[in-house]
Amino acid sequence: MTETEDREDPAGGGTFDRRMLEALVCPQTHAPLAYDAERQELISKAAHLAYPIRGGIPVMLIDEARHLD
Amino acid sequence: MTETEDREDPAGGGTFDRRMLEALVCPQTHAPLAYDAERQELISKAAHLAYPIRGGIPVMLIDEARHLD
Repeated sequence: MTETEDREDPAGGGTFDRRMLEALVCPQTHAPLAYDAERQELISKAAHLAYPIRGGIPVMLIDEARHLD
Repeated sequence: MTETEDREDPAGGGTFDRRMLEALVCPQTHAPLAYDAERQELISKAAHLAYPIRGGIPVMLIDEARHLD
């Protein structure tokens, strides 16, 4: 389970980074994104799009996104 | 939710998001970035630049970055 990642416990390292991911949204749907570490993509489930992180730079362009099945 | 797919430390909440931030680098220096939640900026200390997150979209362009003192 992943509930512990949602905590705001100030002693629980990771809150900072959680808010970083939560601050990002899909340019098309404005829904929150999920991070795929293996593929280095930011996933918009609502839009069925995966935005690439190329060389450490997130590319938040619909035209550059991969369509998910 | 799919976060569990990316976690390597089942006891360490926040690992998922931590690695997300760690995956991002400054386009100029390729050094890691820090996240300023209040200003909604990604900070490159090495380059003295702050990249804006506008409406949830990170803008990783040197020309758009704010110069830090």
